[in-house]
Amino acid sequence: MRAVDLIRQKRDGHALSADAIRAFVAGVTDGSWADYQTTALLMAIVLRGMTIEEATVLTDAMVRSGEKIDLSEFGGTPVDKHSTGGVGDKTSLVVSPLAASCGAIVPMMSGRGLGHTGGTLDKLEAIPGFRTQLTLDEMREALRRTGCALIGQTDEIAPADRRLYALRDVTGTVESIPLICGSILSKKIAEGIGALVLDVKVGRGAFMKTEADARQLATWLVGIAERNGVRTEALLTAMDAPLGRAIGNANEVIESIETLKGRGPQDVEELSVRLASRMLVLAGRASDEPIAEAQVRKALSSGAGLEKFRDIIAAQGGDSKVIDDYDRLPAAAHREAWRAPRAGVVSRLDAELLGRAAVALGAGRDRADAGVDPSAGIDIATPAGTQVRAGDPVLLLACHDRARVGEARALIDQAVEIGDAAPADSRLVIDRIGSGAAT
Amino acid sequence: MRAVDLIRQKRDGHALSADAIRAFVAGVTDGSWADYQTTALLMAIVLRGMTIEEATVLTDAMVRSGEKIDLSEFGGTPVDKHSTGGVGDKTSLVVSPLAASCGAIVPMMSGRGLGHTGGTLDKLEAIPGFRTQLTLDEMREALRRTGCALIGQTDEIAPADRRLYALRDVTGTVESIPLICGSILSKKIAEGIGALVLDVKVGRGAFMKTEADARQLATWLVGIAERNGVRTEALLTAMDAPLGRAIGNANEVIESIETLKGRGPQDVEELSVRLASRMLVLAGRASDEPIAEAQVRKALSSGAGLEKFRDIIAAQGGDSKVIDDYDRLPAAAHREAWRAPRAGVVSRLDAELLGRAAVALGAGRDRADAGVDPSAGIDIATPAGTQVRAGDPVLLLACHDRARVGEARALIDQAVEIGDAAPADSRLVIDRIGSGAAT
Repeated sequence: MRAVDLIRQKRDGHALSADAIRAFVAGVTDGSWADYQTTALLMAIVLRGMTIEEATVLTDAMVRSGEKIDLSEFGGTPVDKHSTGGVGDKTSLVVSPLAASCGAIVPMMSGRGLGHTGGTLDKLEAIPGFRTQLTLDEMREALRRTGCALIGQTDEIAPADRRLYALRDVTGTVESIPLICGSILSKKIAEGIGALVLDVKVGRGAFMKTEADARQLATWLVGIAERNGVRTEALLTAMDAPLGRAIGNANEVIESIETLKGRGPQDVEELSVRLASRMLVLAGRASDEPIAEAQVRKALSSGAGLEKFRDIIAAQGGDSKVIDDYDRLPAAAHREAWRAPRAGVVSRLDAELLGRAAVALGAGRDRADAGVDPSAGIDIATPAGTQVRAGDPVLLLACHDRARVGEARALIDQAVEIGDAAPADSRLVIDRIGSGAAT
Repeated sequence: MRAVDLIRQKRDGHALSADAIRAFVAGVTDGSWADYQTTALLMAIVLRGMTIEEATVLTDAMVRSGEKIDLSEFGGTPVDKHSTGGVGDKTSLVVSPLAASCGAIVPMMSGRGLGHTGGTLDKLEAIPGFRTQLTLDEMREALRRTGCALIGQTDEIAPADRRLYALRDVTGTVESIPLICGSILSKKIAEGIGALVLDVKVGRGAFMKTEADARQLATWLVGIAERNGVRTEALLTAMDAPLGRAIGNANEVIESIETLKGRGPQDVEELSVRLASRMLVLAGRASDEPIAEAQVRKALSSGAGLEKFRDIIAAQGGDSKVIDDYDRLPAAAHREAWRAPRAGVVSRLDAELLGRAAVALGAGRDRADAGVDPSAGIDIATPAGTQVRAGDPVLLLACHDRARVGEARALIDQAVEIGDAAPADSRLVIDRIGSGAAT
């Protein structure tokens, strides 16, 4: 089938056959499709959509464009967690040692921050020596040592996704549920997992701004992953305000370790426990959620999760002494406070604007090939609902380059509201969307 | 404005600003837009559309991507005719000498056949020695000698259109009214014309299959050309059956000359007179259509149009003796008849299928870079409505390569119907769509 005929089919609103979708992905992978044909089809998919059956084949074809890791040596059901991206979301650093310390095999392939959202790889790399670019052999070795591997995407995994994503990013074709699902799930499925817990963020700081959109994405992700043989469910979680009190990289590592020590912010702990519990249920390590939660809470209180994180850091070449000595993490040259302009209650902390402020300080990147300043970031001194006096520090800003503070402050001025009343309590976990098989 | 932001605007259904459209066309012309960005925007335009204001700016920007020919030395209003493409449509070869012999300046830039439709350049090049690839200086010299120049697109004219068309052809983005209008009109406007008569074909053998679609295309073409300062109107004409009795190249040259001698098929003469008359009215060479028609019919009966064609052929290096001796045209090595399988009336001659049969014989091309056999084609021995006996020759097939006949015959078997009654008479000129300024 000629590329142009396939493009015309989608342009005219028809579903593509499995053979057509496989021919497209193969053509993208081996270069026999020209980029200009690929992007024409991508735009047609954005505007015409795909059925869930088409998206299922697309995902499978993207998995098959590269290697699918064989984790059968580990037995059981390897399990991963994936977040659609938020501000201050460091749960991967908490959840993976917790789940691994309860016996789960956690091969977690993560990404870098882009735009206002942070990325797990950037956070891990704030730990001196921590290597995220493991080979597949090194990944297996890490899994043997600790039950967990926290790595970046390798060349062998879903190469079609890398090519497609690079084109989507510069052609306005990111915003498509089937394409988003294919991109997220092809990498996850290629890890060799048998179970997956998704954290689909919704709100001002999330990719999905409305609950309806987030619910649709979650339903598609679960449906496509299940059709590809991965036991999957999604938690719909709020992302209007940042998660926890740290936004950045080194400071989020600290907050993750504090959470593993049982001293973390309540929202980080609650979401981490919930996610880790669902991982244990889906991986078959616990028969229901109450049992799973008891295991996870014990891993927290006993320090088993913390010790697992120490082992993971060591296994991937990092300085595991950071667990006990935060001064071993990169420190910012410049620190200053953003202070309350009036007395009142912290009534709003806008996640997206604070995420962008952290990027302005150097904690994130606007271009995929840019580096980050691991020491830069924002700490929330007074969470939403706190009474403050005029002049009280509300946020603590950290960066290397003082010149960056002006832009960050301008964003923060819009992000923070000091009002007369505390914001209404809102649920952190809005819903759970699954196949109905898990309890 | 970044390319990706502009693409996203159109993707989301917004109109693009004039600056954005000009930036796009400039980026296509100078290569600063990547092809994969261009095709993503083209697909978004196909599926989201453009306003007539956007298409007007697009057309103007495409004109400005190259040179606009200055024909002011000729005074008056240079006028051209353009057909959206049909089967057996040789009117350009008849209309241009007729209009020029009545004093009009006719700078006519034409294309080659593609798919089942023929192209004026291919027909002209069946005349030994006829050069269609003139430089702009040679074009001006031809206009000085004869008032007419029949040429192909040059590198200086609308280079953005060449790049866009090459991409559209392989990405399923041809079918878009604003893009079609931009492509057709940018080349015409760049010729330096002040008036334009469009022959918008409708029917089974046309690009537009329904009258509603053809009417919409005609309305857009007229509206955009008028907004760009060219006095324009469109005739909506039927293209269910081939025009005239010859489909090919050398045989269409013969039929054109026969028409200029007053011996052509009635439909070719009627349409040619009508188009040439409208050209004279729009160019201001006649105050109304009856006066214009009288001039054109006089040019036919006096032989002035024929002599003008002789001059045009000579001015462009061709063998003008073909006017008197058709044996000087390329002759096919192989000829055979398609005969009536039963007695009855020729009740259908399908233009598209006969056009494809002529291509199969070598008269046209399926790929833009292929050559044509000037001697190949089909002559209709018994037009629609003719009584035939079983075994009577209905079509005469000509080609160099006998092996091509099988495919052509298979198409012809579907294209021709021998029935019991003549087809209903249908109007050749369905409507005239104009700005209302001309009478």
